[in-house]
Amino acid sequence: MRTDRLETFADGVLAIAATLLILNVDTQIGERAPDLAHKLLEIWPSNAGYAVSFLTIGIIWVNHHNLMAQVDRADRIFLFLNVFLLMVVAFIPFPTRLVAEHIQDDGAKAGAVAYGVTLIATAVMFNFVWFYASGGGGRLLRPDHDPKAVKGISRSYRPAPWIYLAMTLVAFVEPVAAVLLYGGFAIFWMIESSLFGRDRTQA
Amino acid sequence: MRTDRLETFADGVLAIAATLLILNVDTQIGERAPDLAHKLLEIWPSNAGYAVSFLTIGIIWVNHHNLMAQVDRADRIFLFLNVFLLMVVAFIPFPTRLVAEHIQDDGAKAGAVAYGVTLIATAVMFNFVWFYASGGGGRLLRPDHDPKAVKGISRSYRPAPWIYLAMTLVAFVEPVAAVLLYGGFAIFWMIESSLFGRDRTQA
Amino acid sequence: MRTDRLETFADGVLAIAATLLILNVDTQIGERAPDLAHKLLEIWPSNAGYAVSFLTIGIIWVNHHNLMAQVDRADRIFLFLNVFLLMVVAFIPFPTRLVAEHIQDDGAKAGAVAYGVTLIATAVMFNFVWFYASGGGGRLLRPDHDPKAVKGISRSYRPAPWIYLAMTLVAFVEPVAAVLLYGGFAIFWMIESSLFGRDRTQA
Amino acid sequence: MRTDRLETFADGVLAIAATLLILNVDTQIGERAPDLAHKLLEIWPSNAGYAVSFLTIGIIWVNHHNLMAQVDRADRIFLFLNVFLLMVVAFIPFPTRLVAEHIQDDGAKAGAVAYGVTLIATAVMFNFVWFYASGGGGRLLRPDHDPKAVKGISRSYRPAPWIYLAMTLVAFVEPVAAVLLYGGFAIFWMIESSLFGRDRTQA
Repeated sequence: MRTDRLETFADGVLAIAATLLILNVDTQIGERAPDLAHKLLEIWPSNAGYAVSFLTIGIIWVNHHNLMAQVDRADRIFLFLNVFLLMVVAFIPFPTRLVAEHIQDDGAKAGAVAYGVTLIATAVMFNFVWFYASGGGGRLLRPDHDPKAVKGISRSYRPAPWIYLAMTLVAFVEPVAAVLLYGGFAIFWMIESSLFGRDRTQA
Repeated sequence: MRTDRLETFADGVLAIAATLLILNVDTQIGERAPDLAHKLLEIWPSNAGYAVSFLTIGIIWVNHHNLMAQVDRADRIFLFLNVFLLMVVAFIPFPTRLVAEHIQDDGAKAGAVAYGVTLIATAVMFNFVWFYASGGGGRLLRPDHDPKAVKGISRSYRPAPWIYLAMTLVAFVEPVAAVLLYGGFAIFWMIESSLFGRDRTQA
Repeated sequence: MRTDRLETFADGVLAIAATLLILNVDTQIGERAPDLAHKLLEIWPSNAGYAVSFLTIGIIWVNHHNLMAQVDRADRIFLFLNVFLLMVVAFIPFPTRLVAEHIQDDGAKAGAVAYGVTLIATAVMFNFVWFYASGGGGRLLRPDHDPKAVKGISRSYRPAPWIYLAMTLVAFVEPVAAVLLYGGFAIFWMIESSLFGRDRTQA
Repeated sequence: MRTDRLETFADGVLAIAATLLILNVDTQIGERAPDLAHKLLEIWPSNAGYAVSFLTIGIIWVNHHNLMAQVDRADRIFLFLNVFLLMVVAFIPFPTRLVAEHIQDDGAKAGAVAYGVTLIATAVMFNFVWFYASGGGGRLLRPDHDPKAVKGISRSYRPAPWIYLAMTLVAFVEPVAAVLLYGGFAIFWMIESSLFGRDRTQA
């Protein structure tokens, strides 16, 4: 089975999940706010949440792109592992909204933990997808795959669930700090992989 | 007529229908819930509904992928049969919401029946799409189609409407049991087809 | 300029417009309806509206598919004409909702007229797109286009705005009759073009 | 890294952002408006906003199409710059709603400024994407790129942020005038580039 329809489906789900994030900002503006300029400043957490989650989904898309570049074909188990991966990614708009609406009240901890759990699940599913494809002697890898790139992906995926677990544990104590860590890690990852990713994964 | 735009359109509708499911979870969190952690636990049926319906649409996507792998070209009747199929699949988010919001109250029966009827319609439309393409001496099949795969698809599609009919009849008596059957059948189907699908449909 | 990105974009807009229709049905179920089964029967116009508009957008997709099969390349004017076409098609969910929610009250006329005007605009834009591509001595047609198919498309597009205009005029007097005409015409078109379309446009 | 998945993802985000605009019109029709015809006339700003923003996103899509026609491959920095570009474009439905709902009240200035800032950000990101690809001696350009087209794109992108900045400054004084400028500039751009774009960018 070729991988092109998988890529179309994945790109579709990722594009929609990212674009739906704007609805979270939308719901923050109720009917006819009396002082719109003031209201817009007040809902800055929704705008920040939009930006962080859009970039996070963008990173996931770049990662998926990169992973699929080494994969040649798909079997059913691989397709279903991808469906599970997309299921957790498409969930991201929900905890994003929780964090944005509750970061300044009692619900901050619940929101930040929900966000962290979703990121852990995403990182775990990425590992399942990748190690199923690359395990078993390179089960689904293209015959001409780049061994250095394959090793680079493996090395960068393995610690990710633990990093997100650590950040989620922080969320139980200091939700605001955890949210800053989520955003900061996304930005760090983007910069680091843009500068050094070439050597590691030839992308 | 080639089948590539049909696949793009189908992948688009399936990706959107799956991703829109998160809006059902969203609407369950009203304005500023007083105790967010508690509220998140309370809405577990919405989260379960999200997971079951996302996986169900994922299975439908894998099935459609698999079906199209044997199809070479499309005529208008085939395109319209696919539009009807997509119409019933894109309806799934609605009964999902009904079940999730009413499984614990008087509306459980109506919700579970609506969900079951949607699944029956999906299975019926899959049969129409497939038997139109493969009937009439393999009307739209690729010249080099795999006869074993074609037979395997036919054998697995034919009983599906009756299985969903049986589950829907259960919903009239025991809605909760029916909902467990819907979810269980999806998971069973995924495992079974991942393990044994290769022999039957070479995918 | 090649036409592949135009087709991806058009398929995307059409797939989303069709799939968003379910949100119209969703909004009809308020918070915790007391008698869900009864409520579901009461909102049949929303379900009927979902079906008619989904099929209408499906027909538009098949038409666009068919039109593009004769087109070889795109220039900017052609791209912008397509953007205008997609703009009116993506508007369809709105009058669909108006008709579904108001067909049984005073707003029936306004809703049915709004729906009709949207269909007129769609038919007009289809004519602009098509006659720009096929005019000027086949400006954008593929060198090996089928003259019989080109003539068939021209013949079937030209009367469409007038047919929708006539139905919209009916809506001013008898909104319910007009809505039945919209639905009936879609079904008639599907059947007629499936049975006889092959001779006319080789699809 | 090839550019095809980037184009699929971009087309997806742009198609969804454009199609979601209809939800802004939707929310303007509350539950069971007493006089629907009158209500529909009253919400003309929402319809105008839908049209202007749909066309604006259509123009962005044509521009992106045109830019990518000169680009051969993508690296990670280019992918992330595109993610940022899509992030600001997918934001457009939100200020569109602000303008549409508040153009006739006290919030007009805040809405018009928010819309303008989003357009400035879009123009800035287009410059980053383009000058990263075409700078450094044509870093990512195809070997057979058209130097005249490359120069034409550079010349048309450079002033865009300043033009939008000027319009946004107008919004601080005369919000209605600024909104007319946004719409007028989109229409001017479409006409100008359709008539003269061929010479400049061969599209």
